[in-house]
Amino acid sequence: MQFSSALLESAVNEFSRLPGIGKKTALRLVLHLLKQEESQVTQFSETIARMRSEIRFCKRCCNVADGELCTICSNSYRQKQLICVVENIRDVIAIESTQQFNGTYHVLGGVISPLDGVGPDQLNIDALVERIDQEQTEELIFALSPNIQGDTTIYYVQKKLSGKNVRITTIARGIAFGGELEYADELTLGRSLQNRLPVEKYMNR
Amino acid sequence: MQFSSALLESAVNEFSRLPGIGKKTALRLVLHLLKQEESQVTQFSETIARMRSEIRFCKRCCNVADGELCTICSNSYRQKQLICVVENIRDVIAIESTQQFNGTYHVLGGVISPLDGVGPDQLNIDALVERIDQEQTEELIFALSPNIQGDTTIYYVQKKLSGKNVRITTIARGIAFGGELEYADELTLGRSLQNRLPVEKYMNR
Repeated sequence: MQFSSALLESAVNEFSRLPGIGKKTALRLVLHLLKQEESQVTQFSETIARMRSEIRFCKRCCNVADGELCTICSNSYRQKQLICVVENIRDVIAIESTQQFNGTYHVLGGVISPLDGVGPDQLNIDALVERIDQEQTEELIFALSPNIQGDTTIYYVQKKLSGKNVRITTIARGIAFGGELEYADELTLGRSLQNRLPVEKYMNR
Repeated sequence: MQFSSALLESAVNEFSRLPGIGKKTALRLVLHLLKQEESQVTQFSETIARMRSEIRFCKRCCNVADGELCTICSNSYRQKQLICVVENIRDVIAIESTQQFNGTYHVLGGVISPLDGVGPDQLNIDALVERIDQEQTEELIFALSPNIQGDTTIYYVQKKLSGKNVRITTIARGIAFGGELEYADELTLGRSLQNRLPVEKYMNR
């Protein structure tokens, strides 16, 4: 692409460095910003810069936070004895959006994946073990991806916690609501038969 | 979406205001920036803000420019007597990318479209007429969209220039290179038959 302005070109280059944004999309975004009021663009750029420089990570659950603790950990109405272990911040947002969980979280920052060079030391596992010792945690709910890496991580943490008085569970896997049986994979369908529920429990939802 | 940080939320909101970017994409982009070095994010935001505040429009052709004139107009190797009239900056970039045009441009800033409330006064048409008077322009090449609005604009400018000694042309319309005849629309195919070329001219390309 040939630009007639170096300012335009560098702005397009900056945008096209973002994931999933190519040169053409970047140009469209930059030309859109060029049409906006200068104050709006200033606000855009300042918000982004401030987000990066001022955001912190909750010293308790490693979630993003504006202060020392995130809004979930500092909320006294949430059950502190219930910890949901997730891979990243996006998972926290997904579970929060269901408005069905009233415990707290622990963000691991990834899952154990030797092929990608991620071992237990790179994850926030030690902080989790410490929390369980200090906070009298009653239940640890794993909400990790259902694959080898996720299962390995669950297994590793479980081993680390052996002997401690804490219930370890994982979120239910099964046929999604609205999912058609014929399109479900065999593993999911087979497991959902094994882990069947009494109808009363199903109807309560 | 429920965020546990106001800083994160406002950054996501800023991104999701851009065209074609929803909340989920915005979150993905913000989390990507969060993983980058702080200096990189500062550079991103500063580049965008500087682009908006410092960019100017070429006083000759209305293209984007870093100074008074754009790099095309200030390039002494380009043929100043040849002006290609385009709708917007994106068209300039598209034509420049072909590396086949050595003249200068004139960016109209749109086309005449009464339904959208765009009349000749909102476009840079007067500046074009002035340029033709001052610069001894030999040829005006219209590269506008082939629709009613584009055609109306060509007609309007042509009327304004009647009596002046300037050739007015439009870029060729026809079957695209690599285009299959059976998928071409009737109008394009019919016109490309009417405006057929001698084989020698075709082979020269």
